[in-house]
Amino acid sequence: MSKKILVTNDDGIDSKGIAALIEVAKSFGDVLVVAPDKPQSGQGHAITLVEPIRVEPYLHFKNVTAFKCSGTPVDCVKMAKSVLFKNEKIDLCVSGINHGSNASLNIIYSGTMSAAMEASIDNINSIGFSLLDYSSNADFTASKHYASILIEKMLSYKNGHGTLLNVNIPKSDIADIQGWKICKQGKGGWIEHFQEGQDPRGGKYYWMGGTFENNKNHPDTDLWALENNFVSVVPCMHDLTDYDAMETLKSLE
Amino acid sequence: MSKKILVTNDDGIDSKGIAALIEVAKSFGDVLVVAPDKPQSGQGHAITLVEPIRVEPYLHFKNVTAFKCSGTPVDCVKMAKSVLFKNEKIDLCVSGINHGSNASLNIIYSGTMSAAMEASIDNINSIGFSLLDYSSNADFTASKHYASILIEKMLSYKNGHGTLLNVNIPKSDIADIQGWKICKQGKGGWIEHFQEGQDPRGGKYYWMGGTFENNKNHPDTDLWALENNFVSVVPCMHDLTDYDAMETLKSLE
Repeated sequence: MSKKILVTNDDGIDSKGIAALIEVAKSFGDVLVVAPDKPQSGQGHAITLVEPIRVEPYLHFKNVTAFKCSGTPVDCVKMAKSVLFKNEKIDLCVSGINHGSNASLNIIYSGTMSAAMEASIDNINSIGFSLLDYSSNADFTASKHYASILIEKMLSYKNGHGTLLNVNIPKSDIADIQGWKICKQGKGGWIEHFQEGQDPRGGKYYWMGGTFENNKNHPDTDLWALENNFVSVVPCMHDLTDYDAMETLKSLE
Repeated sequence: MSKKILVTNDDGIDSKGIAALIEVAKSFGDVLVVAPDKPQSGQGHAITLVEPIRVEPYLHFKNVTAFKCSGTPVDCVKMAKSVLFKNEKIDLCVSGINHGSNASLNIIYSGTMSAAMEASIDNINSIGFSLLDYSSNADFTASKHYASILIEKMLSYKNGHGTLLNVNIPKSDIADIQGWKICKQGKGGWIEHFQEGQDPRGGKYYWMGGTFENNKNHPDTDLWALENNFVSVVPCMHDLTDYDAMETLKSLE
């Protein structure tokens, strides 16, 4: 039976990255798409509770059942699972290809990765793909090559629960990429610089910007892999328990 | 020198829960508040990138420097650290007290916990408090008692990085609560039921609702603790790497 692959993203259904991912996914089975009707970068695991969600068919992909959704990336996956494709057995969920890095700490802010995580909670193998290029017209050639490799592997990989992968691809020609590598989440973070300004009516505003600081990471991290032109593949989970801390904190009870 | 305690939440600056938490925090030091100007439940780790953020002084708390912010809970913490209180050394961040549970999987959707996590990234000990009562007029008596105990402990606890705690309090009289307990994140999840409807103009909409399913948890989990009338205290982290899966996945390289 043909495999069913759910595709979503956070840059919006009309972004170049999701079109690239759909093209790859189509060679492995039936593609079902639910993606935001507008950019939703930085939405993390946000869900829409206080207002309704709208969905409309989206007709621009050939031989693909697609819907655009007014909600967040996680809303899209919940709508896919509970309403739009509730009668389908989804074999794999892929999210992206994101325009920009979701390596290291970026994962916690990332709508792309939160959407993939939401699918993995229901024991669906899930992969978030991100290219280290924020341009809306980025070149996804190398990304598609590695997406194809990893989709094939994850369609047959079974471990009893949903495996979730955070895949980041360097901004390089395919010939220069050294392959792919299982990594852990590297240490780094954003140094925020808020731009302060005044709107036309005299109101003060702050606009978030910042620079990402890479904390000199070891070769087993995604940040090291990407700096050295490897595709980084980090297995992730939604259990946030700090098991090491549990032991020491028990002494405070 | 007096301790500096940053207070935030996701229910909004005029909720009863944050007033209760401020009252407790004031007995331990100087209280600095940045909280959303409207309810932001379910915002997870969302940040505001595509539009500006506004802040205004909020004058309803006595002897407390407070700002209301147009952004998400994580935006509030970033504004506190980078703009509003950038010259202060924050000793502890507390978030809540949330109206409703953030135990188990709820942590990933929770603005309350994401705000606390954001502070912990900068090595600030941080605690998210949640009461298992969604009512806007919930009774926070027991919550305040346990918040006081845990704030005191975390103000003096040092382990070289920011310790993050997810604290949930049963909806019970203080006399019936059995104490507090270090736990791990329990297994459970939401079964979504989307309400389908038609708006006055004939447009179809979906509205997210659901029921939480507790997957028969062991006594070392937060869900077990809460069912047995303990306050649950789960140490959490922002490294989402699944270290166990790394080993098995390396065989696919």
